Amino acid sequence: MISFAIVGHLARTDGGFSLNDLPGSGGRMDVLCRCVNTSLFLSHDVRRDVDCYLVLCGEPAAPKTVRFSGNAVRSLSPDERSAGALIKKALDIPTGSEFREAAPGVSVRKGGLLRLMAEHTFAVLDETGSDVRTAETIPDAFILSDHLNFTDDEESLVTMCPRYSVGPTCLHADHTITVVLNELDRRRCGWKSTNR
Amino acid sequence: MISFAIVGHLARTDGGFSLNDLPGSGGRMDVLCRCVNTSLFLSHDVRRDVDCYLVLCGEPAAPKTVRFSGNAVRSLSPDERSAGALIKKALDIPTGSEFREAAPGVSVRKGGLLRLMAEHTFAVLDETGSDVRTAETIPDAFILSDHLNFTDDEESLVTMCPRYSVGPTCLHADHTITVVLNELDRRRCGWKSTNR
Repeated sequence: MISFAIVGHLARTDGGFSLNDLPGSGGRMDVLCRCVNTSLFLSHDVRRDVDCYLVLCGEPAAPKTVRFSGNAVRSLSPDERSAGALIKKALDIPTGSEFREAAPGVSVRKGGLLRLMAEHTFAVLDETGSDVRTAETIPDAFILSDHLNFTDDEESLVTMCPRYSVGPTCLHADHTITVVLNELDRRRCGWKSTNR
Repeated sequence: MISFAIVGHLARTDGGFSLNDLPGSGGRMDVLCRCVNTSLFLSHDVRRDVDCYLVLCGEPAAPKTVRFSGNAVRSLSPDERSAGALIKKALDIPTGSEFREAAPGVSVRKGGLLRLMAEHTFAVLDETGSDVRTAETIPDAFILSDHLNFTDDEESLVTMCPRYSVGPTCLHADHTITVVLNELDRRRCGWKSTNR
């Protein structure tokens, strides 16, 4: 199983945002919707071995974590609005300390990065890390930040995590996920890396 | 300059689609909006050296081509709705045989793949091609199809183009663009490909 966790620093923690304004009313929920897309979608298929955790840190009830499970998700289309509608649905149900399913493959609980870090051995994806292509082995759980940098508190939580970069240019979180999954696909399928 | 051309087989060719339903009313315009995003966006920056051509083949006035020019585009945000609004604006102006600007960096003209092919030396990105990582040199212009395969007529147009694949799994068009740009970034910046 491969896990991606994306921290949405301003992302709303109730369903009170508009699907017509995911960036504004959702606290850049569009970024998280695109991360759901790149984590889970193949052409005409879904990556059944991927879980995507959205760590929502915005108003009014932070932190909450929404989990999209590739092996169970249905009714998810690739467009941002589709993921946004499922996030909204998850945030509209009563939230407890354990994951509760709001729709097939979409669950929500209270808590954020601290709790997730106790459950997974994460690597951080950011531009300061070592090249993921040159790594002998690649982890199976990754943390990324949204359009904002990690806060000081978050940095102190992830300070011991290995860090990987996907290339020489600083990419959006969703694009970074695409590149990591391509590297994982290639290794799994034995595609030789290069002959250059 | 790097160019991506994406064929939208059902994509509307007038502005009569809803930003609240890009997949349905727009003829899978969401696919094309995501291709604009992955072609042009870096983290907190725009790829000034990329042009993204959307070849729209749907009702009622096909074909039309909308061009997003990275070196001139403004007022474009990463969310699908933002690209969709600019496409809609382009499709709402009178369209002639030459590109006409509807917004900074966003232009439209009549004509489709046949005309574009006379202006660029394209490679096709699809799963049957050779591995882009192992190519001695990489082209600077690429054609992709949306969620549908190329038609027989399109296949006959691109039959002489070299074909490249980005990996062992069949990806969405926008994800494919991300992986190609990562490879181009790495080569431009001299990142060694691998030590495995």
